[in-house]
Amino acid sequence: MKRLTLLMYCPDKKGIIADVTQYINRFNGNIIYIDQYVDRLEKVFFMRVVVEKNFSSNSFDSFKNSFNQELGMPYKLKCDFFLEDQIPQLAVFVSKYEHCLYDILSQYQSGKLTCKIHFVLSNHEKLKNIAEQFKIPFYHIPILKKNTEKAEAQQLKLLKKYKIDSIVLARYMQILSSNFVNIYPNQIINIHHSFLPAFPGAKPYHSAFNRGVKIIGATSHYVTDELDGGPIIEQDIVRVSHENEVDDFIAKGRDLERIVLLRALKQHCDRKIMVYNNKTIVFN
Amino acid sequence: MKRLTLLMYCPDKKGIIADVTQYINRFNGNIIYIDQYVDRLEKVFFMRVVVEKNFSSNSFDSFKNSFNQELGMPYKLKCDFFLEDQIPQLAVFVSKYEHCLYDILSQYQSGKLTCKIHFVLSNHEKLKNIAEQFKIPFYHIPILKKNTEKAEAQQLKLLKKYKIDSIVLARYMQILSSNFVNIYPNQIINIHHSFLPAFPGAKPYHSAFNRGVKIIGATSHYVTDELDGGPIIEQDIVRVSHENEVDDFIAKGRDLERIVLLRALKQHCDRKIMVYNNKTIVFN
Amino acid sequence: MKRLTLLMYCPDKKGIIADVTQYINRFNGNIIYIDQYVDRLEKVFFMRVVVEKNFSSNSFDSFKNSFNQELGMPYKLKCDFFLEDQIPQLAVFVSKYEHCLYDILSQYQSGKLTCKIHFVLSNHEKLKNIAEQFKIPFYHIPILKKNTEKAEAQQLKLLKKYKIDSIVLARYMQILSSNFVNIYPNQIINIHHSFLPAFPGAKPYHSAFNRGVKIIGATSHYVTDELDGGPIIEQDIVRVSHENEVDDFIAKGRDLERIVLLRALKQHCDRKIMVYNNKTIVFN
Amino acid sequence: MKRLTLLMYCPDKKGIIADVTQYINRFNGNIIYIDQYVDRLEKVFFMRVVVEKNFSSNSFDSFKNSFNQELGMPYKLKCDFFLEDQIPQLAVFVSKYEHCLYDILSQYQSGKLTCKIHFVLSNHEKLKNIAEQFKIPFYHIPILKKNTEKAEAQQLKLLKKYKIDSIVLARYMQILSSNFVNIYPNQIINIHHSFLPAFPGAKPYHSAFNRGVKIIGATSHYVTDELDGGPIIEQDIVRVSHENEVDDFIAKGRDLERIVLLRALKQHCDRKIMVYNNKTIVFN
Repeated sequence: MKRLTLLMYCPDKKGIIADVTQYINRFNGNIIYIDQYVDRLEKVFFMRVVVEKNFSSNSFDSFKNSFNQELGMPYKLKCDFFLEDQIPQLAVFVSKYEHCLYDILSQYQSGKLTCKIHFVLSNHEKLKNIAEQFKIPFYHIPILKKNTEKAEAQQLKLLKKYKIDSIVLARYMQILSSNFVNIYPNQIINIHHSFLPAFPGAKPYHSAFNRGVKIIGATSHYVTDELDGGPIIEQDIVRVSHENEVDDFIAKGRDLERIVLLRALKQHCDRKIMVYNNKTIVFN
Repeated sequence: MKRLTLLMYCPDKKGIIADVTQYINRFNGNIIYIDQYVDRLEKVFFMRVVVEKNFSSNSFDSFKNSFNQELGMPYKLKCDFFLEDQIPQLAVFVSKYEHCLYDILSQYQSGKLTCKIHFVLSNHEKLKNIAEQFKIPFYHIPILKKNTEKAEAQQLKLLKKYKIDSIVLARYMQILSSNFVNIYPNQIINIHHSFLPAFPGAKPYHSAFNRGVKIIGATSHYVTDELDGGPIIEQDIVRVSHENEVDDFIAKGRDLERIVLLRALKQHCDRKIMVYNNKTIVFN
Repeated sequence: MKRLTLLMYCPDKKGIIADVTQYINRFNGNIIYIDQYVDRLEKVFFMRVVVEKNFSSNSFDSFKNSFNQELGMPYKLKCDFFLEDQIPQLAVFVSKYEHCLYDILSQYQSGKLTCKIHFVLSNHEKLKNIAEQFKIPFYHIPILKKNTEKAEAQQLKLLKKYKIDSIVLARYMQILSSNFVNIYPNQIINIHHSFLPAFPGAKPYHSAFNRGVKIIGATSHYVTDELDGGPIIEQDIVRVSHENEVDDFIAKGRDLERIVLLRALKQHCDRKIMVYNNKTIVFN
Repeated sequence: MKRLTLLMYCPDKKGIIADVTQYINRFNGNIIYIDQYVDRLEKVFFMRVVVEKNFSSNSFDSFKNSFNQELGMPYKLKCDFFLEDQIPQLAVFVSKYEHCLYDILSQYQSGKLTCKIHFVLSNHEKLKNIAEQFKIPFYHIPILKKNTEKAEAQQLKLLKKYKIDSIVLARYMQILSSNFVNIYPNQIINIHHSFLPAFPGAKPYHSAFNRGVKIIGATSHYVTDELDGGPIIEQDIVRVSHENEVDDFIAKGRDLERIVLLRALKQHCDRKIMVYNNKTIVFN
């Protein structure tokens, strides 16, 4: 028995749920989870189904093929199929802040993240010890104003070598090029230390402090061309008061950042996120 | 076109979703919402479906009957059917605290509650003015230690006269008898001013203060035989600190109570709640 | 015995707390609350002190005068003195949304707001009934594109007639002129239905929905020249998900708005807010 | 220049703030933080003051002595003095759960905790690797039903050897004896995985699940004789729904536990907590 996760969407149409669930029943699949959502404005149907079934590699291919034929064509339905052993292949990018890296590696080491972390990459050497302490390979690719293109080329080479399909920017303080971003659509997860869309860009805690807000936030999102403009996966907040200085904002924010990034990463690893129109559907 | 809400549950079994959705399609019903939940421990399947369909009174009956025949029997499925004009018939019980009453009547007057409020009943006269101000009939049935049975008899008479099917205890400070409670199973909504199961019974804010908690809560639940032990519908909390005295707890709690009770009441009116094993399933 | 609240600020300097508390002791004042805050960046000292003391009107004046002489001059300290009977004189401005108005008037009628509400003013007639139901005078001053100046003149006349010193914009959907705003510095409280500085201006729930945020907020602030840019008093948030449509955002937001506005208004009425550099210090 | 933190309490009496601040001024201390709280029920005054001052070891002693003479005696005031280099000497007790340990050691290694962690102690060997990875000594003292007294004796020996003054129970699943607890009054910090006083004792997530709560919590408190009955330092909560099974409660709770324990530990290390009548005063 293997577990298969299906993420599908199509123009909304009567009968789609009935037809999909029947198809699965016919193949002796046992539906152990089903959740669906209809975007009524866009008239698009989304569904996540988890099935338990006896799959040989053959039968998996034939299951997919006939699914696409029977349902994909008539419903204009697009579906991703993830067998339970197809886990995300991850790289973690960092700069100098360690709190998110600690959290990711601790949870990974405790078996709480359904993925394989291949390496940590940084434009600084500062966090090398942490990667080593957790026995994860560490690559240092410095980034200077002159060499960003060359540095990205090196990064891409590494990513290809390790067959990475998901990248976590764990407080990585460099902006990726459009070229880079477009190679990994909805596969690069960033944590931004503000309640987006408030305070995009640099130094959000300073801006929040200057504005005199009473609540600060953190936002995890997929990276797109637009700086801090990608689909939001998860947000959370914490209260601040006039007594808190910028350093207090930063300290309080640290706990937010690591929690929010980790939640987003878990949902990504568990194949619970779909993206449409620059928004996420996060099944729970 | 009328909107019909179905709340159903049965022993979990393969094919149930497919069969129900197909049945509805066959009757030209348009499913505009579907949400399902499986209690894996108890192996029970729950589903809420909202359908739009052309119903004559005849066709509604035949829809129900053949639904029960085709699906109810083979699946041991129990289903409640609510046509959109079958809204809850409500009575509000209060004592001396006005904040929840204000909230309910304000929201009702603004058309935000899908129900009919027939009257306000109290064991005190204090809140009569408020009911009158909102043009809702007010009944005063005093409760003394000696006459509780007689008072309940009067209450029940009123409830029957108005064909009430849902009762809101909006800080009603009397304990209803088992007899009374059992006439309205999962139809009496209470607000308790603590984070249940902490601090059941009287004076929870005082107990919370004495215990030195850093967070206080409010809990809305259906009333059962067991004091403050019924199925929880909604809870929320607010932070307190050592600087807050009992009166601050009470003041902060007031806002919680009205918000939490109102959320629960809305979900009840919108037929979003199912009860099983002294727990609620709240579809959203 | 009367209660006196002092709100003071001055350049930070050693000895200020000792000198102020000694002064009050010397006048047989009993300090029942003291809270202080130092803005270390700006090097400004802020303090709120509540004193109980036997005041005749004479002795109050002499207390103030010698306070200003002994402490105001040497410390360059500015202090506001509020005797307990000097409560805020309030007007409530509304347009068509009723939820904040209900909340304010309910709390006022229950004696939970330390102020006098003189009238409700609106550019529409829609909420007249509510004001009347709570027995508060209602004024209807329509605003057309052509007549805004004239309408503001009428408003100002009313405000002067009633000697209003605090105005609450309870979802008042008109922008006040600079002229108007500058007459009431830090005395006009607005509720904005977003987590400022995100989504200032019109239709924030629509913008939040389009951006795909996972949390929405509400912000209460003093009104300044800059639209939605004034000192923030209070903020709060509520979670949303991909399942929520704009109407759900609006419905969830309603509860936020009334709670956040009410908290801000209470703190204003209780003389707990100081404003400096477009930020608030909110003593609790 | 050294930083000195004073934590003091005494029966509430007029003039105490003025006298303390004057005393510090007289010794050329610069008050950089002052916060005070009066328990009006018990009529007790509490104050936390942070002072910057040039201290030789001599002058520190004479400062303390004359403080106690001038203020301690007349006001019946008790004061603890902490020079900035007198940081807490910590031991961490764990069993098999690693999440809190990871968090504490990560934050410690990043310099975010003002303390010295001398060792990790466990009744199991499971987390040895983690301690080693962070280069903290690890002691394994197994606990069997028969040998608890002997095991505690071994623990106490270790604690004395390292001159430990603060102990963190980071999901340590053994109950300490009264004898042990009374040696470290208000110095043992525990994390309990429920919203106390709800669900004390074993398996709180299971109990919370069975009760059908909509919110779960975590509580950090000082350990006293009474199981899970000590003074609460910090609490926080997270929402759950009918869709969450016990394992989801546990997973969601893990993040709560580590955050709540860490906040409590930081406040303890920063000398921000006072305990009185089984409650904490937490200055911020």
